[in-house]
Amino acid sequence: MARKKSPKLRIIPLGGLGEIGKNMTVLEYEDDIIVVDCGLSFPDEDMLGVDLVIPDMTYLEDNFDRVRGFVITHGHEDHIGAVPFAMQKFDVPFYGSKFTLALIEHKLEEHKIKKADLRCVVAGDTIQLGCFKIEFIKVSHSIAGALAVAITTPVGVVIHTGDFKVDYTPIDNEPIDIERFAYYGSRGVLALMMDSTNAELPGYTPSEMELGRTFENVFDTADGRVIVASFASNVYRIQQIADVAIRHGRVLCFQGRSMVMIMRIAVELGYLNIPEESIVEVEKLKRFEDSKVCVFTTGSQGESMSGLFRMANANHKLNIGKGDTVVISASAIPGNEKAVGKVINQLFLRGANVVYDRLADVHVSGHARREELKLMMRVIKPKFFIPVHGEARHLYHHARLASTLGIKEQNIFVMDTGNVLELSRRSGKLNGSVVSGNILVDGAGVGDIGSAVLRERRLLSHDGMFAIVIAIKKKTGKLACEPEIISKGFVFAKDSEELLEEARAIAREQALMFESCDKTEWGNIKNMIKSSIKSCLYGRTKRAPLLMPIFIEVD
Amino acid sequence: MARKKSPKLRIIPLGGLGEIGKNMTVLEYEDDIIVVDCGLSFPDEDMLGVDLVIPDMTYLEDNFDRVRGFVITHGHEDHIGAVPFAMQKFDVPFYGSKFTLALIEHKLEEHKIKKADLRCVVAGDTIQLGCFKIEFIKVSHSIAGALAVAITTPVGVVIHTGDFKVDYTPIDNEPIDIERFAYYGSRGVLALMMDSTNAELPGYTPSEMELGRTFENVFDTADGRVIVASFASNVYRIQQIADVAIRHGRVLCFQGRSMVMIMRIAVELGYLNIPEESIVEVEKLKRFEDSKVCVFTTGSQGESMSGLFRMANANHKLNIGKGDTVVISASAIPGNEKAVGKVINQLFLRGANVVYDRLADVHVSGHARREELKLMMRVIKPKFFIPVHGEARHLYHHARLASTLGIKEQNIFVMDTGNVLELSRRSGKLNGSVVSGNILVDGAGVGDIGSAVLRERRLLSHDGMFAIVIAIKKKTGKLACEPEIISKGFVFAKDSEELLEEARAIAREQALMFESCDKTEWGNIKNMIKSSIKSCLYGRTKRAPLLMPIFIEVD
Repeated sequence: MARKKSPKLRIIPLGGLGEIGKNMTVLEYEDDIIVVDCGLSFPDEDMLGVDLVIPDMTYLEDNFDRVRGFVITHGHEDHIGAVPFAMQKFDVPFYGSKFTLALIEHKLEEHKIKKADLRCVVAGDTIQLGCFKIEFIKVSHSIAGALAVAITTPVGVVIHTGDFKVDYTPIDNEPIDIERFAYYGSRGVLALMMDSTNAELPGYTPSEMELGRTFENVFDTADGRVIVASFASNVYRIQQIADVAIRHGRVLCFQGRSMVMIMRIAVELGYLNIPEESIVEVEKLKRFEDSKVCVFTTGSQGESMSGLFRMANANHKLNIGKGDTVVISASAIPGNEKAVGKVINQLFLRGANVVYDRLADVHVSGHARREELKLMMRVIKPKFFIPVHGEARHLYHHARLASTLGIKEQNIFVMDTGNVLELSRRSGKLNGSVVSGNILVDGAGVGDIGSAVLRERRLLSHDGMFAIVIAIKKKTGKLACEPEIISKGFVFAKDSEELLEEARAIAREQALMFESCDKTEWGNIKNMIKSSIKSCLYGRTKRAPLLMPIFIEVD
Repeated sequence: MARKKSPKLRIIPLGGLGEIGKNMTVLEYEDDIIVVDCGLSFPDEDMLGVDLVIPDMTYLEDNFDRVRGFVITHGHEDHIGAVPFAMQKFDVPFYGSKFTLALIEHKLEEHKIKKADLRCVVAGDTIQLGCFKIEFIKVSHSIAGALAVAITTPVGVVIHTGDFKVDYTPIDNEPIDIERFAYYGSRGVLALMMDSTNAELPGYTPSEMELGRTFENVFDTADGRVIVASFASNVYRIQQIADVAIRHGRVLCFQGRSMVMIMRIAVELGYLNIPEESIVEVEKLKRFEDSKVCVFTTGSQGESMSGLFRMANANHKLNIGKGDTVVISASAIPGNEKAVGKVINQLFLRGANVVYDRLADVHVSGHARREELKLMMRVIKPKFFIPVHGEARHLYHHARLASTLGIKEQNIFVMDTGNVLELSRRSGKLNGSVVSGNILVDGAGVGDIGSAVLRERRLLSHDGMFAIVIAIKKKTGKLACEPEIISKGFVFAKDSEELLEEARAIAREQALMFESCDKTEWGNIKNMIKSSIKSCLYGRTKRAPLLMPIFIEVD
């Protein structure tokens, strides 16, 4: 009986489960709470006008005096994007690699946050936060400075891989530290939380190195400029391409806000190794022959204000045209396929040669596929398994994979954001949920936009709005002036004078009733006018704009 | 010199070039015009609230007395979707296969169009329209009744493939009629217009038959119900799966409006061969064990009111749950990836097993890949080549392919919608353009929505709207009542009383100026009030709703 009272380790994902995005996981034991990652997600297409989405941190706020610190596995937005918001609430240290912290610092500057307790770690470092001992372990991923964590808790070791892949031939020659995972595995691991992004896909994700041949080939055959669009934070990719470009006698030019910013950081911190004389400002590019130029730019996702988009649409100092070779060294993130396709079309229309993932090996994923996941499960040999970082489909396949490798069904927990998993040395069970979800950030507002406002935006976006102002004399009920109509996004007003006049006539005519009826009836009259105008508009156009009759009573 | 005056064949695509969608091609020689296909496209994500897009037919309207008829290659929306609109303008015959015409008839019913001159053809038929002799040739595609056309014109033969693939083992055992294409090839073809959809992709598109193994495997292993989501018009797919299901002792049930409608047509016309006793109404399904049931449904694109979507979201008589196997036998059309992903996740959350294109061979394309395109070019041996049905990227690769097969560069024409290609027996050249483009259909309005309205919808969707009514006494300039605010999609009004009051106070205070200023100044005062409120709203929220100050003057 006494055993039941012994404290449990509680694992609570506040994001990243049932979704790819806004990763955030809480570990809690008695008086101590630590948080792994603090990410954002980008708004779904139905979150109209929303800038970004962060995890609901109510649970942490309710327990803020127990929060000992945040541990950040790497610098992608879905792992660091909510840091500025968390930092305003929790006065605790944030740990991460040099590169991760540099990206966070940049973010803090943008948010004008000055006080920050950022603590730099390297793979192999161990820190203590309350009762938790945390060791950082090197992993491969599509960003520099990615780390997994092995968290020694009072009930056993929990390993959280963060995002990772198994790359034996990484560009920086520092492969994932399988040995260290195996070390923990051999001593016994209580629970493994592992990246599920590619859990549907068989085989191995190819090494970053595998792309070398494609890039060699591109530079061997290109006569004119080579323009490369890629994620700025994938410094290994940039390094690899830059090396080939320099070997082919080309100078490098970096374009796009985040590309320039991250390059500066990566060079400063030694993650990126490029001779200073190889980097040229865009203004000085004209001094070089086209065949001596390589440009790196943002825009691999077709973003409408990015470098590549502007170059493709003649809205940039470097306009792409005949003779140029454009390499889009990325794959489209779900939802961006059409935007990427449009940029590719635009580039072809301008006469450029475009190399993209349908045609050549210009991109590899940063996430482990099934064979890599199996390797990790075999060396870590966890008692409990929690697939993380994935939508339901990814979590499901990851769980099934774990089961085929012999992890007991009842020891595999497919969790949802907000679920609470309680673990002891011997047993684990899901036990309820905490407040969790999406906090929408729109302009200066954090969390003030909800479903009601989004519903209005949806209606407005579909058929626009139609407002009609009806001013009535308080005493007599007479119209005080002609009804005024404002319509936006509904019909083109100049071509629709007749329709507008018809609506005005309905208002004018039915408003006569205000004169002849008792004031107690005015509410009904207003409803009637609204519904008559609604039928008129719908009948004539088969559209239903957001209809706003505005009745004002004047002296 | 005389030769220059001899009339030319003019080929004018009014849609389908530089885009995948709304296919429509005009062929014109002296007094005769024929049109191949008459399709729609679905609105881009920036065409907010638009229902569908049809080609601008101004050129045909301007020459309506020369239009001899429409020839429709097959019944997909991007080939028939604009027929109801064209039929209202052109009183000419529309030719197509039995299945194509049945789908058009259904469409006409929906549009309440009664008078229609529909003429049924089969492969091998030849018709004469003005000076054009048109032979229909059987092709393979992902819909029944697909035909290519060989058009004998006064200057030579033009072949338009429509959409096609080369399938030697089609489900109906009627393969593409390569022989007939070769017949024309051997006698000399002036120009070939060929489907470019898969021109980027190497190799062959697999035969529809290749999917058999996957379906056998699904039915061999499924214990519970099998639910198949597919395009209703792909009757070969339905036939193939239905055969396997019946062989496994299952009854069939069809769900979703277009699935039920198209099945009825396909069975009636003999395109689909299913014993009547195998088809069961949804109400009677309960009489059968789950392992004896197979359901076909719409929703393979994740459409929000489709059968599959509702089944996945517990909003259908057939709710999907544990034990069910769902096969999504389609691939996501670009732009639908996220919607499809959401349905898959929802199905996993409900405990179903889901089989989709990432996991198994459940879909093949209906379009020819590069090896098939090469085959067609080799047997048809056209003098001139015009890649059609494709975005810029597809057209570009298709043109490059033609060039590697020996078609002269100057005889390959990469056209854009609206371009005019003039061909004689010996020469061809692009010669200007005609009016063309997107006509947006929104509700009852055809073409009345333009960029101004779309821009307003975009603004409204982003930050909503904010209207403030300021009523002023005509004579005195005094406020006639309190300023009235209506805000939608901007802030949640109940939480923002303070902000609204601030805006009202600005209006109230600045409106005092109306009293003290000459009427000629009122315009300036209005502008000032607008700009003060704008700064106030942006300053407090960092959002820019569509701001509408409404000034009314009352007696």
